[in-house]
Amino acid sequence: MAKNKKLKLGTIIHGVGGNVSAWRHPSVPADASVSLEFYKKQARIAEEGKFDLVFIADGLYINEKSIPHFLNRFEPITILSALAAVTSHIGLVGTLSTSYSEPYTVSRQFGSLDHISGGRAGWNVVTSPLEGSAKNYGKPEHPTHDERYRIAEEFLEVARGLWDSWEDDAFVRDKESGVFFDPSKMHRLDHKGEYFSVQGPLNIARSRQGHPVIFQAGSSESGKKLAAKSADAVFTGHENIEEAKAFYKDVKDRAEALGRSRDDIAIFPGVGPIIGETEEEAERKYLEFANLVTIDKALEYLGRFFEHHDFSQYPLDEPFPELGDLGSNSFRSGTDKLKKNARERGLTLREVALQTATPRGEFIGTPEKVANLLQRWYEEDAADGFIIYAPTPDALSDFVTHVVPLLQERGIYRTEYESDTLRGNLGLPIPENRYTLDANAGVSVNG
Amino acid sequence: MAKNKKLKLGTIIHGVGGNVSAWRHPSVPADASVSLEFYKKQARIAEEGKFDLVFIADGLYINEKSIPHFLNRFEPITILSALAAVTSHIGLVGTLSTSYSEPYTVSRQFGSLDHISGGRAGWNVVTSPLEGSAKNYGKPEHPTHDERYRIAEEFLEVARGLWDSWEDDAFVRDKESGVFFDPSKMHRLDHKGEYFSVQGPLNIARSRQGHPVIFQAGSSESGKKLAAKSADAVFTGHENIEEAKAFYKDVKDRAEALGRSRDDIAIFPGVGPIIGETEEEAERKYLEFANLVTIDKALEYLGRFFEHHDFSQYPLDEPFPELGDLGSNSFRSGTDKLKKNARERGLTLREVALQTATPRGEFIGTPEKVANLLQRWYEEDAADGFIIYAPTPDALSDFVTHVVPLLQERGIYRTEYESDTLRGNLGLPIPENRYTLDANAGVSVNG
Repeated sequence: MAKNKKLKLGTIIHGVGGNVSAWRHPSVPADASVSLEFYKKQARIAEEGKFDLVFIADGLYINEKSIPHFLNRFEPITILSALAAVTSHIGLVGTLSTSYSEPYTVSRQFGSLDHISGGRAGWNVVTSPLEGSAKNYGKPEHPTHDERYRIAEEFLEVARGLWDSWEDDAFVRDKESGVFFDPSKMHRLDHKGEYFSVQGPLNIARSRQGHPVIFQAGSSESGKKLAAKSADAVFTGHENIEEAKAFYKDVKDRAEALGRSRDDIAIFPGVGPIIGETEEEAERKYLEFANLVTIDKALEYLGRFFEHHDFSQYPLDEPFPELGDLGSNSFRSGTDKLKKNARERGLTLREVALQTATPRGEFIGTPEKVANLLQRWYEEDAADGFIIYAPTPDALSDFVTHVVPLLQERGIYRTEYESDTLRGNLGLPIPENRYTLDANAGVSVNG
Repeated sequence: MAKNKKLKLGTIIHGVGGNVSAWRHPSVPADASVSLEFYKKQARIAEEGKFDLVFIADGLYINEKSIPHFLNRFEPITILSALAAVTSHIGLVGTLSTSYSEPYTVSRQFGSLDHISGGRAGWNVVTSPLEGSAKNYGKPEHPTHDERYRIAEEFLEVARGLWDSWEDDAFVRDKESGVFFDPSKMHRLDHKGEYFSVQGPLNIARSRQGHPVIFQAGSSESGKKLAAKSADAVFTGHENIEEAKAFYKDVKDRAEALGRSRDDIAIFPGVGPIIGETEEEAERKYLEFANLVTIDKALEYLGRFFEHHDFSQYPLDEPFPELGDLGSNSFRSGTDKLKKNARERGLTLREVALQTATPRGEFIGTPEKVANLLQRWYEEDAADGFIIYAPTPDALSDFVTHVVPLLQERGIYRTEYESDTLRGNLGLPIPENRYTLDANAGVSVNG
């Protein structure tokens, strides 16, 4: 039963999140998504709880139907860099799209964040589900789902190559002799691929953790393939433990088939614990949130996953409408599951919309109940750790105050940080520099 | 004689800078360019000195001939965001290239930095002088000097449009009614130009200062045109007051001809003060630095401005060689001046190389002497302010401790910050939102 590693924890900070109307809750600062104070407070609560990481999501397109906290929010690289300066141990993971950015810039920005934070950076590699993103980046069309993943794979290859530009002992810095660096330990990548052509070297060294930790968050077939091959961690979401176990096994099997250790990829389902002293109190807290969502807002939110489809045209209390391929080029794994679930369980549009906008989850109850559930998911190989969605600022401190000590008592969660790098805390190996591994691989700048 | 605004001060933090061999000086931490502690310390000294801003330079290409602090350094957006979290009043200005980035991303990152810092962000718009940059961004060739400036102009137009996506009162956030924002105050840019096509809106609101402050740092004809039309401030460099006065008048005249007020664009020459209790002490400190530079390093440094031309092939003590057009597509204004100066003064290659690598400047001496010079430049319209190059960490605190109080006593420099935004301290107006100015301009998202 005992796993090789302790349970890991992260939290997503997304301002007025939780649900599409969470910002209306009296305890939520309505400007949280652009408040440095709010982000600092949440990160510090998580660090008090010895969390492995905070997670910042992102998107590259909004319109008048977007949900409130997407309209006006911090860009991940900037807010993570700010948090790096006011935290000391917690990992700093942010979403950045490989479909609308340049590997040289992205590698530099994450490399720089990794130095600023002393080795605590993580990059959630996404391919941008929203089709409208193309319009903000002067592209004739959003690449297809499959092509986006091919781009992502090459992008990540380039990033890893750039991060290895400098061997760890390249900077000699000998004041006496005047030798600043050893040119034989500076390497040009000279990548020429299908989508990118990047010479290098990168103008920043590797950090203490070698490379930033790579997260992957898509659960489609392409997403799982990319994760199994290239990710250190997967951020996923499941409605129940059976589904989570199947996903966990699937990704670990794939990684193993590619020659990796099952321990080298950590699976983090997102969960939204709501803690009460009693079951009733927790339930009441949940309803305070759920009831903030009107059916109009729920339909609008649902539409977001289907290219902003207008669901108000259908009758609310009849079976979920037939949508054909709609949604398959954006949030594919989510929309496939949603359609299948509605069909199999005969759900109405109203039911689907409200369940999507305010997912209830099972992590609602007393601290003991929630700790038991987390422990079960962890021990039964449904999860290596969890990303906590805290619907209010108080929900995160409730979790840290009441649930974390139980997990610690049970010996499945740390009482002190093992390390001050993200890789160190996640128990992930530091990737060896490709040029140190094999002096003949790649082309040195000197020939 | 009295100017409308007090003298402004900034400092450039670039790790082991000062000169190409400054890292060898005993007082310089040789890893300063990737040390958060170093950047924090410098920013805090500058903030104690009530400086308007810190400035972070940048570049997108290195090779084995690059100077030490360019090889391995923080990326500006990340380090400025980190500094935002640990400072309260000082402006945070960074270089970012319009030749190798996307307006949507750049506008977001500076917009986000502007919110994180509470309205203290500034963007030094550059076009990337280094030709090698193209190779890191998969471009067949580096755009010509003129084209880079056309791109920059359109880029800046787009950025300004995106920053105006939201009118200042767009976010209603009424918890009772459930109205988060007013869609009539959200605007799509729908820009379609020669180089960029960007729909918008941007997913972040305007900050307290409206737009980040725009710096421009090129002194070529195209650079001055762009500055006069679009910049709030110019970072320049001059060998003497006459040259500085001519530049100052030229840029202000151009701005005025375009209908702007002379006060709406601030001119900041870079100066490298070295302070001693006596003239001799200051001179001795200067020589400690200058003597760290070998002639080989100086030739290599000189080559950087001429597409990494190999100057070791020429005799050292003969007149500066004829180079034709070399250098005109990268640092044009600098290389033109350098060639002209060498020709007119009959300088040898050795003289040019050493003067370029360790420019002496005139701001070396006692606090009174340096304060007098700064005051003269300021009062005689050679400068509105200065960007201080501090060759050692101590040089910046020397300046703050010994020169700043003299400028304050003379009533030409602030004793307290006037504002907590960068625009406020620079005395620059907050740009009105284009849609608020004229409700008929641009296309609202609602038609």
